[in-house]
Amino acid sequence: MSHHFRIRVPSSCLPVPVPGALLDARLFTARKHNHLARASVAAASPSRARRHHRQRPRATAGQEMEQGGKAALGWAARDATGVLSPYSFSRRVQSDDDVTIKVLYCGICHTDLHVIKNDWGNAMYPVVPGHEIVGVVENVGPGVTKFKAGDTVGVGYFVDSCRSCECCAKGHENYCAGVVHTSNGVDRARGGAVTLGGFSDVIVVRENYVVRVPDGLALDRTAPLLCAGVTVYSPMMRHGLNEAGKHLGVVGLGGLGHVAVKFGKAFGMKVTVISTSPSKRQEAIDHLGADEFLVSRDPDQMKAATGTMDGIIDTVSAWHPIAPLLALLKPMGQMVVVGVPSKPLELPVYAIVPGGKGVAGNSVGSVGDCQAMLEFAGKHGIGAEVEVIKMDYVNTALERLEKNDVRYRFVIDVAASLGAAA
Amino acid sequence: MSHHFRIRVPSSCLPVPVPGALLDARLFTARKHNHLARASVAAASPSRARRHHRQRPRATAGQEMEQGGKAALGWAARDATGVLSPYSFSRRVQSDDDVTIKVLYCGICHTDLHVIKNDWGNAMYPVVPGHEIVGVVENVGPGVTKFKAGDTVGVGYFVDSCRSCECCAKGHENYCAGVVHTSNGVDRARGGAVTLGGFSDVIVVRENYVVRVPDGLALDRTAPLLCAGVTVYSPMMRHGLNEAGKHLGVVGLGGLGHVAVKFGKAFGMKVTVISTSPSKRQEAIDHLGADEFLVSRDPDQMKAATGTMDGIIDTVSAWHPIAPLLALLKPMGQMVVVGVPSKPLELPVYAIVPGGKGVAGNSVGSVGDCQAMLEFAGKHGIGAEVEVIKMDYVNTALERLEKNDVRYRFVIDVAASLGAAA
Repeated sequence: MSHHFRIRVPSSCLPVPVPGALLDARLFTARKHNHLARASVAAASPSRARRHHRQRPRATAGQEMEQGGKAALGWAARDATGVLSPYSFSRRVQSDDDVTIKVLYCGICHTDLHVIKNDWGNAMYPVVPGHEIVGVVENVGPGVTKFKAGDTVGVGYFVDSCRSCECCAKGHENYCAGVVHTSNGVDRARGGAVTLGGFSDVIVVRENYVVRVPDGLALDRTAPLLCAGVTVYSPMMRHGLNEAGKHLGVVGLGGLGHVAVKFGKAFGMKVTVISTSPSKRQEAIDHLGADEFLVSRDPDQMKAATGTMDGIIDTVSAWHPIAPLLALLKPMGQMVVVGVPSKPLELPVYAIVPGGKGVAGNSVGSVGDCQAMLEFAGKHGIGAEVEVIKMDYVNTALERLEKNDVRYRFVIDVAASLGAAA
Repeated sequence: MSHHFRIRVPSSCLPVPVPGALLDARLFTARKHNHLARASVAAASPSRARRHHRQRPRATAGQEMEQGGKAALGWAARDATGVLSPYSFSRRVQSDDDVTIKVLYCGICHTDLHVIKNDWGNAMYPVVPGHEIVGVVENVGPGVTKFKAGDTVGVGYFVDSCRSCECCAKGHENYCAGVVHTSNGVDRARGGAVTLGGFSDVIVVRENYVVRVPDGLALDRTAPLLCAGVTVYSPMMRHGLNEAGKHLGVVGLGGLGHVAVKFGKAFGMKVTVISTSPSKRQEAIDHLGADEFLVSRDPDQMKAATGTMDGIIDTVSAWHPIAPLLALLKPMGQMVVVGVPSKPLELPVYAIVPGGKGVAGNSVGSVGDCQAMLEFAGKHGIGAEVEVIKMDYVNTALERLEKNDVRYRFVIDVAASLGAAA
């Protein structure tokens, strides 16, 4: 398997994966639309449908291999069972502006789970998951100016973008239509190679998509910040939810929510956790430092908090009514949705028009956001709450993740798992 | 009827009227909630229900009368038929900081229609409608510093606010919970007097809620700017939809939409009108100066415009899917809802999360916004498209308004109608 396999994927075939969040993928609309489109094509023209299917990416081993590239060992899913097993491949040949990174830790995000199980119909097997990567620079291309061997660095949800669109020009690469995801992404600039993620001992990434990890951070607890962390930090900065004295609501206390609480407190805000589970009160207040805890199913508690919050970060991916949450906002308050319920949310206009309130979405953050977030985390000693595992536990971890049985993020100690074999 | 009639209205009885927009009030949720609450009270306790009804404001003549106040002639609705007829009353005694204004023109807004027909269950008859007022100062209290007799001024959707809350402190009086609407409002600071609006020859307003009309504006065309104008101008300023070169979408070409097109062009933006009615193309482009016109029911046109707009002002109050509109936005684009469909909008998260897009509501604007809007209109010669009528045509005009048979706003020439009787 030494050939350089090129796959070109029409963008319309690609559902938009949403990082960070717990996704209910069964009805994920992008996939549904895809299926509807395909069914319609098939009905209209069987031969056209066959051509259409031929254009879709196939499960192919060694997609990222290049002759002369660095040998890599990862764990990959080979089919929609999502079971991971060891997988040998080689990384691309390091280019002038590339950084070769020895992976130390990699977090497990719900997106990984959905991709390996092909929940969105876009898996290109073998899939090597992982986009919450912390590692150490092994080698750099001759054109690299920002990093040198030995630097501690991070890689997040994407490893490249078109670098020419309005989003890229403004430093919002995360919203570039040509963004290249770190795992199961399509690297058009490299012939459509499918990217292989951080569940592997080594990765090669263009330097402008690598961030520096400040000294003093616990590296295992830092890994989840590269996706979960920036997914809440970025909209907090964008929507002014980073000012001391303001009141932040955090809906859902999972991988994203618990980090949002920590950022909010570090910004000097009053932070209230809003949850359906009264049992999380002690954890929220005593352990994470939240100021208050609201049980969203308790109408009296919700009523008492009406109009008190400047902003809300909603991390919940199960469908839920948002009008009661919007009622918690002050006039002109902003709610940010980072979870991805499959069914459309209900937005009664009375919940936003009389108070001039807003609902915005957010997907990860730019490279700049990610670097700023790490600096902020470094300054305030913020890390995710993690359960560190070895790679051979990853399938069990994924099963547990599916049941939300983790507090709050699994992180694979990649170096300790694959280091000897690398 | 010389007594000073005081009515205290519990705030929970007051649905939140939404100015400017064409409202489908049949299922307006605030009213529905009110009704549900009342039904529930009635079921639980007939006597309590009676008490509850007794607390509600009743149709009462001369609510704003004060001994010594200026005699006024208006047209009022006496019951839910909404039929207006002449109505004599007296304005409050002019206070130190009050301005007495001879009304010249008053626009007719859909909110007026809903209030006089008691669509929201909050009408306090007799209702003298009107909150798009242009007039001339007749007299000022001794403490007034901003205006003098002879000044041309405007009064919009509200005539007072609490002046002590966070919204008022920040100059967002339009979102103050204690805002006093110009018509059918409850003036708590004056014993709960019910306000009587601009369908009358004279009005007395605290100076800080009066705006100056710049020289050179046609006064009849200016009247609708006091509500419809500021309702679109304010969110355009707030959300950065006021920058030359940006691309603005305007959904719906009615009283609000047509003014949004004019503001957008005056800001130097590219403006595209989005409508279900292909017949409005010529009007939008040739008459109002829009650059492009999209038929929202034409999938090819909509697809071709995907991801091209920086912002959208959505003025439509009939229920409509917003996901296709959100698809027109660039990443991080902002849609502003100023119409008020009765049924909740459907907000699929895939429409906002991957692109970091936002949906916000807006209700009129602050006094400062309103003054700035008028200055801008003065500078650029912007006025609403109006059909000027006399007061004795108002019932016919209201019937036509109900059928959207107006291009684009009725304005009553109040001085020519009531001047002789005043």
